[in-house]
This record gives sequence, C-alpha cells and structure tokens, in this order.
Amino acid sequence: MQFHHHGYVSQDPRVLPAAGTGIDRPAELPDEMDVLIVGSGPAGMLLAAQLSQFPDVTTRIIERRDGRLPLGQADGIQPRSVETFQAFGFAERIVAEAYNIGWMNFWGPDPQNPQNIVRTSRTEDYGLKISEFPHLIVNQARVLDYFADAAHNGPGRIVPDYGVEFLGLTVRDGEYPVEVRVRYTAGARSGEERIVRAKYVTGCDGARSRVREAIGRKHLGGISAHAWGVMDIMVNTDFPDWRTKCAINSEAGNILHIPREGGYLCRVYVDLGEVAEDDNHAVRATPIEAIIAKANAILHPYTLDVKEVAWFSVYEVGHRVTDHFDDRDEDAGRAPRVFLTGDACHTHSAKAGQGMNVSMQDGFNLGWKLGSVLTGRAPASLLATYSSERQPVAQQLIDFDREWSSLMARKPEEISDPDELANYYLGTAEFPSGFMTQYGPSMITGDAGHQNLAEGFPIGKRFKSSTVSLVADGNVVHLGHHARADGRWRVYVFADAPAAGEASGVTGWAEWASSPASPFARFTPEGADVDAVFDLKVIYQQGIEGVDLNRVPDIFRPKTGPLGLTDWEKVFAAGPSVWSPTDIFAERGLSRDGAVVVVRPDQYVAHVLPLAATAELTAFLEGGFLPVR
Amino acid sequence: MQFHHHGYVSQDPRVLPAAGTGIDRPAELPDEMDVLIVGSGPAGMLLAAQLSQFPDVTTRIIERRDGRLPLGQADGIQPRSVETFQAFGFAERIVAEAYNIGWMNFWGPDPQNPQNIVRTSRTEDYGLKISEFPHLIVNQARVLDYFADAAHNGPGRIVPDYGVEFLGLTVRDGEYPVEVRVRYTAGARSGEERIVRAKYVTGCDGARSRVREAIGRKHLGGISAHAWGVMDIMVNTDFPDWRTKCAINSEAGNILHIPREGGYLCRVYVDLGEVAEDDNHAVRATPIEAIIAKANAILHPYTLDVKEVAWFSVYEVGHRVTDHFDDRDEDAGRAPRVFLTGDACHTHSAKAGQGMNVSMQDGFNLGWKLGSVLTGRAPASLLATYSSERQPVAQQLIDFDREWSSLMARKPEEISDPDELANYYLGTAEFPSGFMTQYGPSMITGDAGHQNLAEGFPIGKRFKSSTVSLVADGNVVHLGHHARADGRWRVYVFADAPAAGEASGVTGWAEWASSPASPFARFTPEGADVDAVFDLKVIYQQGIEGVDLNRVPDIFRPKTGPLGLTDWEKVFAAGPSVWSPTDIFAERGLSRDGAVVVVRPDQYVAHVLPLAATAELTAFLEGGFLPVR
Repeated sequence: MQFHHHGYVSQDPRVLPAAGTGIDRPAELPDEMDVLIVGSGPAGMLLAAQLSQFPDVTTRIIERRDGRLPLGQADGIQPRSVETFQAFGFAERIVAEAYNIGWMNFWGPDPQNPQNIVRTSRTEDYGLKISEFPHLIVNQARVLDYFADAAHNGPGRIVPDYGVEFLGLTVRDGEYPVEVRVRYTAGARSGEERIVRAKYVTGCDGARSRVREAIGRKHLGGISAHAWGVMDIMVNTDFPDWRTKCAINSEAGNILHIPREGGYLCRVYVDLGEVAEDDNHAVRATPIEAIIAKANAILHPYTLDVKEVAWFSVYEVGHRVTDHFDDRDEDAGRAPRVFLTGDACHTHSAKAGQGMNVSMQDGFNLGWKLGSVLTGRAPASLLATYSSERQPVAQQLIDFDREWSSLMARKPEEISDPDELANYYLGTAEFPSGFMTQYGPSMITGDAGHQNLAEGFPIGKRFKSSTVSLVADGNVVHLGHHARADGRWRVYVFADAPAAGEASGVTGWAEWASSPASPFARFTPEGADVDAVFDLKVIYQQGIEGVDLNRVPDIFRPKTGPLGLTDWEKVFAAGPSVWSPTDIFAERGLSRDGAVVVVRPDQYVAHVLPLAATAELTAFLEGGFLPVR
Repeated sequence: MQFHHHGYVSQDPRVLPAAGTGIDRPAELPDEMDVLIVGSGPAGMLLAAQLSQFPDVTTRIIERRDGRLPLGQADGIQPRSVETFQAFGFAERIVAEAYNIGWMNFWGPDPQNPQNIVRTSRTEDYGLKISEFPHLIVNQARVLDYFADAAHNGPGRIVPDYGVEFLGLTVRDGEYPVEVRVRYTAGARSGEERIVRAKYVTGCDGARSRVREAIGRKHLGGISAHAWGVMDIMVNTDFPDWRTKCAINSEAGNILHIPREGGYLCRVYVDLGEVAEDDNHAVRATPIEAIIAKANAILHPYTLDVKEVAWFSVYEVGHRVTDHFDDRDEDAGRAPRVFLTGDACHTHSAKAGQGMNVSMQDGFNLGWKLGSVLTGRAPASLLATYSSERQPVAQQLIDFDREWSSLMARKPEEISDPDELANYYLGTAEFPSGFMTQYGPSMITGDAGHQNLAEGFPIGKRFKSSTVSLVADGNVVHLGHHARADGRWRVYVFADAPAAGEASGVTGWAEWASSPASPFARFTPEGADVDAVFDLKVIYQQGIEGVDLNRVPDIFRPKTGPLGLTDWEKVFAAGPSVWSPTDIFAERGLSRDGAVVVVRPDQYVAHVLPLAATAELTAFLEGGFLPVR
C-alpha cells in the first residue's frame, strides 16, 4: 500500500482523498450523469467501486430497495473473486470473517444398507491448490458492504441512491443520450417519477432485468423441470460433516451442503425433484417444513434439529443467456450505450457457486472500459469488447452449470462410479475457481506470436501472480498484488540477463520508453503522475544483492506526487532470497532474454512481447488508447 | 470468528451487540465509574478495548487532547504486539498497511576511505524467524485507531472522553474510593473543574504522569548525557537502503534508520552526541536544519534532499523505572486502587522500538484482571499481581535498552568487530520480539512441576501457537489464534493416545470437568454461556479422519447461546493432513500421555498439568477465582 506522496496521511490510508465529482458530491440524484448503474448487486457495486477510481466521471447507482441487502442470496466466493477483492483492497478482511473451504466431502448410499448414507470420499478443495487465494463462503450482503466501502472510500465517494426504481429507458442523441425513467420507492419523494439522462447505463438489475427488457434483448433458454429448496439454517445434528461442504446423494434425494461463516449457520440446497409440466411454479410455494423434512430424509440415519431458519427460498433451475450484453445496433452503426451484467444476462443454478463471481467479473471487465472512454483515454469502440468478451464466458458458465447440476441431481442407481462427482469437481477446478476465462484477440488483447517468452502468462487469461523481492526493502511480495483496481494498466518488464545499468535489452527498452514519443508519454495526460495510466515495473533476474538501485533506469524509479518523490516500489528481483525460494522466471516460464508483459486494469494479460519489439508494442497500444497530449 | 449463535448477524461481525453499560452509554463523563483510564496512548486504549469486553463494568477513558493523535511518537511493532492485535481482531488490517521489516542492514566506515560509509552486513530480521507474526513499522496513531475501533465495537461501546485533563486524585473509603479532580480542556465546559469517583484508576498518562505524582511513586534513574534527533521525513536520495531498516555508524556519528508505512516516509534517529552537563536541555532546541545537516554528514557519500518534514523532535535518553506500578500500601494493608502503565512507570530510549509494545503488554496484563475482579469472578488480591509481574519486565527493558543504546552510540574506533551489532541484534531477538517475558509463580501462574509434559509451552511465557486441524471442517488453523482478547481463560486439553470416546485420560478428565462440582461449573455464572469464563478445547493426536465427533465428550461440543446450538470449534486433530505437515505434539514437545495447558486471558501459560491431576488443577483455579454459584 503506497501513500503519503500526495500529502501526509494520518488516518486510514484506504480512504483516498476525495477528488473531482467526489468533492461535494450531491446527495440527490442529479438530472445528468456519465454512468447510471441500475441495481446494487455484486456487478453493480463492483462497478461503483471501480468508477470511484475515476472521479472525473459522474457515476450514480440506483437501487429499488431502500437500503443495503440484509440477508440471503449468493455466498460462494471463488479464488478469482478473492483475487479481485485483493485488488479492491479488502481481501484480508473478508478472508478473516468467511468460511474457508478446505474440503469437499461426498456421501452416498451405504452399499450394505442403502437407506443410510455413508461418506464415500473426502476431496481437498481446489482453492489453495490452484491459486494463492482461498475458496470461501460468505454472505453476499457482506461482499456488497465491502464494495460499498471501496466505492465510498475512493476519490469519487460513490454511495448508492437507495429507494430509486428503474422504470424504462430510451436511447436518443446528444451528450447524455440515454433517457431514463425512474421512480422513488422510499423517502420524502416516494412515488414520484423522474427523467434523468446518462451517457451510459448498466443494467445490473438481476434475472428479471427491466433494463434488458427496455433494450429488447432476449433471455434465451428455459427453465428446467427441476426444483431446489435452499435454506440458511442453524441446527443441532449428529451429521458429522455439518461444518464441511458436502454433496450428498441418497435414495431420498440430493443435498448440496454449504457451511457458512461464523461457525453455526449452514446453507442447504435440497433437491425437490422433477416438476410436473403443469406445475405452473406451484413448487415455489413449498413450505419450509417440507424442505426440512426432505433434508432429514436424505440425511438418514442422521437427523437435523432445526433451531432457526434465517432465510429460505425455492427455485427452479433455469439456464439462460442473453444474445448480446449491450444495445449495439450494428445495422445502424450505433455503438453501445446500455450494458447488461450478471443475472440480467445469464441465469443458471446456484449450485456451482458461480453466479456472484461471474457477475463481479462482468463488472470488473466493464468498469475500467467505461472509465477509460469517459476520461478520453480510450476510443468508444473499446466498449464493444465488453459484450464480445463476456458473452462467451456466460455461455461457458451455463454449459458447466448444466453439467454439474445434472450430475448432482442424479439418482443413486444412475451412478456407476461413486468417485465420478469428486473427480469431476477436482478435474474441472480451473473453471469454478474463475481462472479459465481467456479473452480472444481484440484491440486490447494481442496475438500469441510471442507467447513462448512467457508461457506462464497466457495472453487473454488473468495474470497469475508469483513472488518476487522488492529490491528497495528486500521484502518478498506477490508481484500481482501490487496491482490495485485503480484503472491503470501494468507493464511488467522482465529483464534480460545483464545486471541493472549494463547495456542490455531492458536498458534499451527503458530508453525508448522514456522518450516523449513513447506511447506511455503520449497516452498519459499532462500534469498527471507519470504512472497515472501505465504502471511500469521491472523485474531483474538477479537477487536483491545483485541489483544496484542507483543504476536502474529512471523510468522505473519515477518521481511522483506534488513533492516529486521517488517511487521505490517498481524494481523487483527474481533471484531467490532467504525469505523465498521462488524464481518467477522459472515459475512462469519466462525467457532469460526478457519479455514485456502488458496487463489490463482488470488483471488480464493483454500482450507478451520481446524487449526489442517496441514498434509492435506501440502499434498494439495505439489500438486501445487515444493520445491525450 | 464465531457469530450468529446469539442471533443472525447481517453486518460486520466484528461489531458485537451492545450490552450492559454499552447500552445507552452516556456521552458525558458520569460522576461515578468502575474504572477511570487516564490517557489514550497504547496502554490506555488497549485497556479500553479490553474492558469493552466486560460490559458490566463502567469504564471511561479521559484524554487531555481534544481528539485523536494525528502524528508522530512510536512506530515499532514487535511480533508479540501483532499477536496481541490478532487477539483484538485487527492484525490482518494493520499488517496490510504497515511496513514489514524483512531485513536490518548495517553500515560502517569504508576501511579504504573512512569518510564514506559502506554496507557491512545484511541481517534477516527476527520477526518471521521467531513467530508466525511479522515485525512491523506503523504510526502509533493507527494502532490507537484500531484499538479505538475495538473499544467501540465491543459490547461496552467505549469511546474516549477527549478534552478532559487529570489534575489529581485522593484515595478514600467507600464503594468508589478514588476521588479524581479533572478539568475540561475543550468543548462547551472548557476550563470547568469536576470531581469524579472511581473504583480503580489507571495512569496511562506518559512519562510526565500526573497520576504517578498523585500517588507519590518515584521515577528512579536519570537522563543520560546523550541526545538524539528524530524526524519523519520524505526525501529523494541516492542512499540505496533508504527503504530498509539500517543502523549506520560513521565517523560523523550514528543513525538508526526506520522506513515507514506507505512507501515514502522514513523515520531517522540521528545521534546528536554527548550533552554537556550544564546544557540544561538546550539541546532540545536543536533546529530541524541542524538534524538534517548531521544526517547528511553521517550518510556521506550519499545525500538526502529533504522534501517534507512530517514531524520531528529532540530528546535525551532517559532510563527510568518506577519502584511500584500501583499505590499499594503494604504497611496499611491496603490493596491497590491506582495503577501505572507504560511511560508513566518506565522510560527509555526509542531506538529498540520497545516502548509502545511494552506499554500495550502492561495494559493487556492489567485489563482482564480489572474486569475479573469487578465482575466478581476473582478476588481483589489478583490486582497486586499486576505490579509484581510487570515491574521486572520494565527493569529488563531498561537494561536491554541501555545496552542497545550504548552499542548504537559508539564511535567507529570503539568497534572492533563490525558484525558485533548485527550479532547482538539477532542473538537477543526473543527480547525485542516481545517473547522473553516469563512471569513467576503466583496465584495465577503455577509451578513448573509438570513442565516436562509440555516443554514447548513454558509456564509463565506466552502461549506460542502452532497449527492443528479443526475436526469439524478440516481447516488447518492456528490453535492460539482462536483465543480472542475477550477476558476468557483457555484450557487446552491435549489428549492421550486412545481415540475419541474410548476409555482414556481425556475421557476421564472430561467426565470430571462436566460435573457440577468442577471448578469450570463453580466459577462460571449461572445463565452465562457454558464457556463464558473457561474456553475448553481438546486436541486429539489423530488426524481428522481419526476423530469421530459423535464420540467426543459433550463438554467439548457444548451448546451455546439462546438457541442452545452446538459449538463445533473446540475439537482439534493434531495429526498431519494434506494441508499441513505439522503435528503440534511434536512441535511443542507434548507428552503422548496428554497434558492440560491452562492459558490466561492475556495469553500467558498459567499451568501445565497431567490429565489425572484434577485435584491440583482445582486447587490452582481456586487460588485465582471466586465461586459465583
């Protein structure tokens, strides 16, 4: 965490000084704004937190409810989401209060006594096997709280406008082309309707999205004929795995069992079986007593003595995805003005624990793009990449969830290999961890021509961090964790073999990068900190003793803030130290001839290039940026 | 973190429900209170946070300043303090914003060119070598902020009464025997004097403590004739170790250099040399320019270009300790009513980074004792152990600091072995880490007769945690980190070899412990949670697969809260798992015949006994507790 360089910080350094629209931000929803976020779920709140880092952009977030979400809804947090929380600055807090999934256990009918269940396997959870971040369970309400803090503590000082409902929108011409009808649902103006105007609108308003409806996008797919009851309960029980995540497959049906944060609460997904065609959603009226009775039947010979039901719901599994995630009109040549995220454009079962996670990544993908376009850093065409990147991810999710749900919903007699579910769980771990997303080539994702220079940083996938030593203080740090969700691009310059200051590829690269004609200069606004758009870091192959800071090119020791203070946190050593055995060059398959790895603000690898390929790097960046000088 | 068992928690689980005096706590300082804390420094604020866990006790904390500390003062955080922060629930937050000390480097005159300094050694810092907690640097102001949060978020809802100055006190008779004169220094009542009355007063009011003066205790020792300038500065420099902790010994003098949180600020202690006998504190008027000039001379050939001075001060090293840390009057047979903590009873140089840390441990030692006596759990005689335990620690600190300061203040020609300072630094690491404190036998610290059953948990030293698996969810956790600073005692029952439920020492112990005649029952108030005073945990030698929770004695699966919910977090497995190779029995030298390790609320090991020694355990507990049924 870096601070003090823009003035001494006495209080919480996570609270950044208000700037731009964050200074004297009006309490009342204004008539005009740059971005209107509809809905304060995971995607909407992440967007608010992200756009708070762009305080020159006016962002408002409306929510029909008159306050924060108190209860229920999603709770599965994949490692990629924890990685995202790290970028937003609150991973350590949420980890401290969440349930950590260490194991997933599988139960099935006892072959000797099939009306009883027995544990068929213990499976280590994939979380810490696949990333440095864990796999957690914590109430969506708390995730939203942390994003709300991040939004409010950012320079944009964004807080949700609670008690304001979206009614409809029309896209017209002009500076604020999206005309939005809203209605107050709470407070002094309750019932009043208003028109407000925005440059862009994001529909983060859930499965029954009115924004989706307003732009005429269709949810394709159907509701399956399978119903599940879900309950957050506190019980006494003799079921020994009550505090372990379990998939339970019994003659009486199936349970997906999820222990929750705090040590007492658990979430139980109870299979309510096939729904008759003429059911007409009558299953949704299943009483809690019936769900509890079914759970007891499934868990036989164990029993649940339910002491409190904190929340419950019944739903039918739907698998639907919207055709486009924006309102583009290619025939009319109109760029998108309205975007859909999360459940508004993809719905599926809750059981793979994916919904909130994929929704947040929708928001993470879109946020920096809106911020970049609205601050003049990037062309408006950048916004079209949102739908083209996220729609295939949603389709993957639907396909995965359909397979996982049907595996989970099988009857015991349909299961030949009792380890099949466990094997599927582990074998597919990269997907539910959130790390399988790979964006295809575009204006912001390069081609794989030089991928061999950095095999461990696949272009289009998220930058998988590894440890290095910060030369200035010798501390072992995760290189990727320095990257905060501040809308900046990262350029990691992995040096060739010569030591700092010697004639080398990296010395030449630094000379090129320092010239006023370099893209870094041209795409960074006059008067801004030199690293306001591109955060350049160098990683030498030597250990800390082998890097003489006074010989490192100046561009990696830039002067920053009003005092022009040296930034000491851009020069790293890969060589192992007493504190860490890791060499990132070996860990990530980096060429000893060096490589430049360009990473987007949402942590996805945009490009890998040789040190000498400065023209190629320039050409690539010219595709995604606008000159600001 | 355990929650939900006293009602569903939707918001931050660190905010406990208000209780007792925390409900409708008056904003104005009342006329009468149980505890009056004078001063909101590290000891005072820790006391407030601790006593907030005893909401039946009325606690107020007065501070002459009209608000929080903004700047300056202490910044060194030893691992024991981070361990303490963990118990108060904020370690992960402060670690995330602090400077982590990975190395301490030593510089001395270049033998070839003695007016220049050269690096003579790099020494790994002791922090992570000696404990699972790091050695940090962070502004005292932030430490106080976190304790303020803990005090306010505890059930007692304690907030400081800023702008109230202590004038004097008289100890009389009656229920609230300490009569205290205070004066408002800010706000509407500024200038007004008042008399308030307390059962106990703690003087946490610094080196010039008026509480110390009021009880007639004397600070013994003197001010040395050596002066130091200290400055928090932001600079540009070519000194390559500017972001590494260093001891610099040069022909021009000495510097202790401490990088600070945030990546830009550093603290520099500059040796200002011997002070003439007739100086009469004139050295304290040394201007900042002179300190900077001296620093530049010491760092030659490197230079500092100072861009901003955030804070500076000049002080003369004093080494003083007060004879008793309370107002006991053994001749009159009067038990203590007034206590001194921190700088009020021990002062020394700042350079070993100890002051704030030892002060906090003073507070941690005293807080639970006050809470226990005031809630009727313990006899008033417990309070006399505060001074008898902490006074020797202060004397150790003075001795250590005197040696370290004189080593640091030597001239180059006095140094024969350039590694001597580095070796001393590492060789004595247990002391500055905060782990060398060992309390002698008393009513709350047993004798070492059975120490051989648990060699790794020395009686009288703090409980050094190690990892175990929580059987209920298979997560690998630090056994000691479950212990929060909630005023409860911990009883760790390390099982003998048989599996749970089989006839064994631990099964017998549990039977004894469950009887209404056991000390756990007798010393726990009627109507309170069964573990409100004693938190009993069992650690089996098996792995998680080898512990059948349904066969573990009920006392380790107690029912808790108004719903009577099973607490799943008291049964642990020592056997290694895929997530951890550690076996706590091997790591801590525990007898395979089992052992009972009793740990005080301030994390110090109170006793080690065999499973069979239930009579001895009863006798020991009867010394420190009062029957409440």
